[in-house]
Amino acid sequence: MSNPTALARTPEPPYYAVVFTSQRAAGDQGYEAMAARMVELGSSYDGFLGIESARGADGFGITVSYWRDEAAISAWQRNTEHQQAQRGGQATWYADYAVRVARVERAYGKS
Amino acid sequence: MSNPTALARTPEPPYYAVVFTSQRAAGDQGYEAMAARMVELGSSYDGFLGIESARGADGFGITVSYWRDEAAISAWQRNTEHQQAQRGGQATWYADYAVRVARVERAYGKS
Repeated sequence: MSNPTALARTPEPPYYAVVFTSQRAAGDQGYEAMAARMVELGSSYDGFLGIESARGADGFGITVSYWRDEAAISAWQRNTEHQQAQRGGQATWYADYAVRVARVERAYGKS
Repeated sequence: MSNPTALARTPEPPYYAVVFTSQRAAGDQGYEAMAARMVELGSSYDGFLGIESARGADGFGITVSYWRDEAAISAWQRNTEHQQAQRGGQATWYADYAVRVARVERAYGKS
């Protein structure tokens, strides 16, 4: 299973990124278990390349998942458990969120 | 000045995102002041659309800045203070980092 609180080792671009930014609502209400399950489930999908996630003490967080192509993203979006989690996110876990789907064109690192 | 720990209000795609993921090294060593200055300075650039940033207690963080086009990103990359900060990041502030430049193709929110 991917560790989302470490740098993802992605291939050479191009590939896709789904940038999910969110403000958590108060209380856990099953959030941590759901989030861990979504990482486990999503990372089993064909075309999954990696995931990175950070959330501050103020509840504002960013999760970026990386995908081979749009078709891989679409397949994951159709997953039933993922759709249930999205409904829970809308109703319970997030005060607000935004999703941006982007094509990574270039990338570089520290070394 | 933009508040980087809140959702950015970006226009309709297409536009660009610079996804900066990093693992902080130990100690502040001027980091917080530099980071605030970079938000202030970067957000004054033509073509800047917004910024979002989150870092967990483990020091792993993600900052996403949004830009009208590649030319706006390039202009900001040429800023002298920004280049000094990048050298500081390489030498002092970050144990590791990755930068990905991506073209946002679609976006949606909670409501």
